[in-house]
Amino acid sequence: MTDKPVLYSYFRSSCSWRVRIALALKGIDYETVPINLVKDGGQQFSEDFQTLNPMKQVPALKIDGIVIGQSLAIMEYLEETRPTPRLLPQDPQKKAIVRMISDLIASGIQPLQNLSVLKQVGQEKQLPWAQKVITSGFNALEQILQSTAGKYCVGDEVTMADVCLAPQVANAERFKVDLSPYPTISHINKALLALEAFQVSHPCRQPDTPAELRA
Amino acid sequence: MTDKPVLYSYFRSSCSWRVRIALALKGIDYETVPINLVKDGGQQFSEDFQTLNPMKQVPALKIDGIVIGQSLAIMEYLEETRPTPRLLPQDPQKKAIVRMISDLIASGIQPLQNLSVLKQVGQEKQLPWAQKVITSGFNALEQILQSTAGKYCVGDEVTMADVCLAPQVANAERFKVDLSPYPTISHINKALLALEAFQVSHPCRQPDTPAELRA
Repeated sequence: MTDKPVLYSYFRSSCSWRVRIALALKGIDYETVPINLVKDGGQQFSEDFQTLNPMKQVPALKIDGIVIGQSLAIMEYLEETRPTPRLLPQDPQKKAIVRMISDLIASGIQPLQNLSVLKQVGQEKQLPWAQKVITSGFNALEQILQSTAGKYCVGDEVTMADVCLAPQVANAERFKVDLSPYPTISHINKALLALEAFQVSHPCRQPDTPAELRA
Repeated sequence: MTDKPVLYSYFRSSCSWRVRIALALKGIDYETVPINLVKDGGQQFSEDFQTLNPMKQVPALKIDGIVIGQSLAIMEYLEETRPTPRLLPQDPQKKAIVRMISDLIASGIQPLQNLSVLKQVGQEKQLPWAQKVITSGFNALEQILQSTAGKYCVGDEVTMADVCLAPQVANAERFKVDLSPYPTISHINKALLALEAFQVSHPCRQPDTPAELRA
């Protein structure tokens, strides 16, 4: 018998990676059910999965008898029910800044460069489209981080903002975005990738990572 | 001397409307600074406004000595610092569902049909593009709401999910989305629009609403 949380995840999905980082930071043991977003026309479109998450997206987390979709909602739930270590500062104003940065990435950048949008944009326009939305978001993010960052996005503790940042930088690299105009983002990302929670949850180290992409 | 919060808002922006509803529900008095997203090539691109919100987007709220961007981060801050009346249920599982629905709209629908994306899509493709993303999101939302809704999105109390819902339905109407497949969404929306907080905050009743659109 197990009551382990079950994470529906795709190795390459940056939103799935966010939740994997949060689970790792909090030391929560879980099972992974891989949902391949490209194989079989997209396993997220299967009837079984649609029943679980009508948005037909990963991640979704089955936990404590409910299924939660949307990575930030999942992280907020983990924060409420498994508060240690904290992913949100206690100070309400710092907390607001962490959530603002998280939302900037989760609403302002990632949705505009995800797989389903790029499909609609058309093959030859995908790369410039993705580069434009990431660059535009990173221009804002760099400016914000210059006044909020310590070792990480907001001060010297890892927060939800960092959990969103590293996967978005990985997307930027995948879309060949020039990161040289973003020294603060790059510096924080490097510090994050040195942490165990970001390493064990990395796309190159998941149960569904194809052999040729493993590291 | 005033310490009133200042809301940078555009009458038609659905994300600005979310914050106006939240402020009205909580009975928080505030000043509006209109930022016209189309006039003068977009006032959000002015140097002054970019300094305030590097994302060059409305809403932004100046409150308690800080400026917060991103509507959900703003609402979470209001909830922490002005908790009555609640916009989030106390039960962590219900709270997770409220946040999931809010994020579904705020990350999964609205960003894909906002002004800056539609500009990139090109004039003749704008309407079908917007209709497709809203329809796809509403298909999921209708299914979720069928099991969570009471009088409103989650049970019988107005929550952050409702604050996100009504402005998104207004966008759907503006893009001529057929709402007949969404009886639950439509029913909740009707109940919400009957509430004073949704009426005083409505796009047709703002300081910057053009005379011909006022009601």
